[in-house]
Amino acid sequence: MLEQTTLYREIHQQPESLQRLIQQQTEAIRRLAGAISSQGITNVVVAARGSSDNAGRYAQYLLGAINRLPVSLTTPSLFSIYQCPPRFAPNTLVLGISQSGKSPDIVSVLAEARKQGQLTAALTNVPDSDLAQTSDYVIDLCAGEERSIAATKTYTGELLAIALLSVLLSDDTERLSSLRETPALVQETLALNGAIAQIAERYRYMNDCVVIGRGFNYATAFEIALKLKELTYTIAEPYSSADFLHGPLALIQHGFPTLVVAPAGALSQEMGRFLVQLQQREAEIVCISNDAAALGLGHRQLPLPAVAEWLSPIVAVIPGQLFAMHLAYAKNYDPDHPRGLLKVTETR
Amino acid sequence: MLEQTTLYREIHQQPESLQRLIQQQTEAIRRLAGAISSQGITNVVVAARGSSDNAGRYAQYLLGAINRLPVSLTTPSLFSIYQCPPRFAPNTLVLGISQSGKSPDIVSVLAEARKQGQLTAALTNVPDSDLAQTSDYVIDLCAGEERSIAATKTYTGELLAIALLSVLLSDDTERLSSLRETPALVQETLALNGAIAQIAERYRYMNDCVVIGRGFNYATAFEIALKLKELTYTIAEPYSSADFLHGPLALIQHGFPTLVVAPAGALSQEMGRFLVQLQQREAEIVCISNDAAALGLGHRQLPLPAVAEWLSPIVAVIPGQLFAMHLAYAKNYDPDHPRGLLKVTETR
Repeated sequence: MLEQTTLYREIHQQPESLQRLIQQQTEAIRRLAGAISSQGITNVVVAARGSSDNAGRYAQYLLGAINRLPVSLTTPSLFSIYQCPPRFAPNTLVLGISQSGKSPDIVSVLAEARKQGQLTAALTNVPDSDLAQTSDYVIDLCAGEERSIAATKTYTGELLAIALLSVLLSDDTERLSSLRETPALVQETLALNGAIAQIAERYRYMNDCVVIGRGFNYATAFEIALKLKELTYTIAEPYSSADFLHGPLALIQHGFPTLVVAPAGALSQEMGRFLVQLQQREAEIVCISNDAAALGLGHRQLPLPAVAEWLSPIVAVIPGQLFAMHLAYAKNYDPDHPRGLLKVTETR
Repeated sequence: MLEQTTLYREIHQQPESLQRLIQQQTEAIRRLAGAISSQGITNVVVAARGSSDNAGRYAQYLLGAINRLPVSLTTPSLFSIYQCPPRFAPNTLVLGISQSGKSPDIVSVLAEARKQGQLTAALTNVPDSDLAQTSDYVIDLCAGEERSIAATKTYTGELLAIALLSVLLSDDTERLSSLRETPALVQETLALNGAIAQIAERYRYMNDCVVIGRGFNYATAFEIALKLKELTYTIAEPYSSADFLHGPLALIQHGFPTLVVAPAGALSQEMGRFLVQLQQREAEIVCISNDAAALGLGHRQLPLPAVAEWLSPIVAVIPGQLFAMHLAYAKNYDPDHPRGLLKVTETR
């Protein structure tokens, strides 16, 4: 029974774990925001891999577009493999993001940052991990133990912690109250579970697909593609709609499956035009959106509740998680035991 | 006849266009290196898409590992779509890379950088393009008109210009003389053409694959995957070997095709272990390397000449370009007219 899998339970724990994060970590995040302001931080470098790297992508757009803080994703192997790590620019915050806080290459980036005298912070579900111990500020994701190999509740926790950091950096009470509604919106989105179980049947024999999002939801495209790969062994490749037009569009032919994440916002027009291009090339479109026009262009619709664009990645990933889980089940795979993966991957 | 296609000709023009770049642009690159030093630049932000973004990835590793200069790849849509672009950290060089110099979103990043008073530079094959006109320093790729939709000679030109910048920043005559040998090594590598035509036959019915590289050759994995997508409509997904272990490894089963870029260098041991893991899972391995041990683990070998690791991406991409071209031909596609693509993609 799918309902008895760890993955199913952890996906459904998200409203609760997000609520807990807001309650228990707002003060810790406020302290980090205070340090960023008082130390005159001018840029952020994120060190992460896998789902946590996707959370870093969200930070890049959110802190960039709303807080005007440039965020870059670093290349851990520069720190772990080659002899001379880069010198961080002055006033850099180095932010390690890792569920387990264990991956040696991520820890090595933070250790080097510390050596260079930069501000460091960790987002982790294990607040006494190596990563946490190498960081000046620690945000505990408060997700409870995540046993499933495919990260779900720690991923949305990472996004929410980043969103909270953005709000507290700009001290914006209106955005804070929107953010507090997110756990309820996630709850509402989980009601798609039954419909998605049906929709997944259609893709039983899908071997490959692309997942497309842009702006804030570039991260969502990456994360949904990763869930599909981990759980269903589908070759699922993530793209921004803009990058997709620079070459990969050539892939599209009749029936090619595309999963498009297109919540309403600054990109609505652009994504609308993009969906029409896909339709003209006879792609099969599964659309995740709260925009009626975008949904109308999909062969299958995964409707989202109304949500501010900057918070939409926390909500928009939910149908993707459910879709990957149900598709794994439809393909007779065990969602709790993806072949060849361990929960903690220690790369150097 | 494949030999009469524009793509074939442009791939084979690379020794010559690289030679021209060294002869004609060393002084311009020296001036840029001088400005970087005299203005106390502490970090570089690259704006690019498609193949040029892959050249940016090379800059990230090369300037990071050898010049200790942190390089990040920016997200053009932050500048073109959302209202508030990030404030660049003080002393940032913003480097636009674009064959045509035309894409409005790339130009918008440079325009914003200028408005914020940052140093700007362009790497482009069109020295009077919009991008060039928005930049303080312009490096002309000197590749001659690139007519083929799949970029080849402008990509290796971008890499070589970045390598030259790295050398001139550290004023290293030994590395400069290695760099001057690159056009001859590219020439030598092009002799693989006949063997690769044979090898491509084997993959006529391959629908998807992964392309793996790490460190300096992370860029090479991305670029070869892009050529495969553009020219052969294969779902080819690029990975660093480290990221691959965080989830996507689950994809691998008997016969799954993997293209592994593993030139000798700091990563030899790591890539060797990774190749053994692929072999244990019965992946099919096509190996691009000049390391006998790595080549020995491949079902098909694409041997490279001896080359310093930091320059190897300029050489290692050549068998990938040839493979994509011959595979397109084996699949009865026209390499000069990929479906649905234009040479200049103007994304916003």
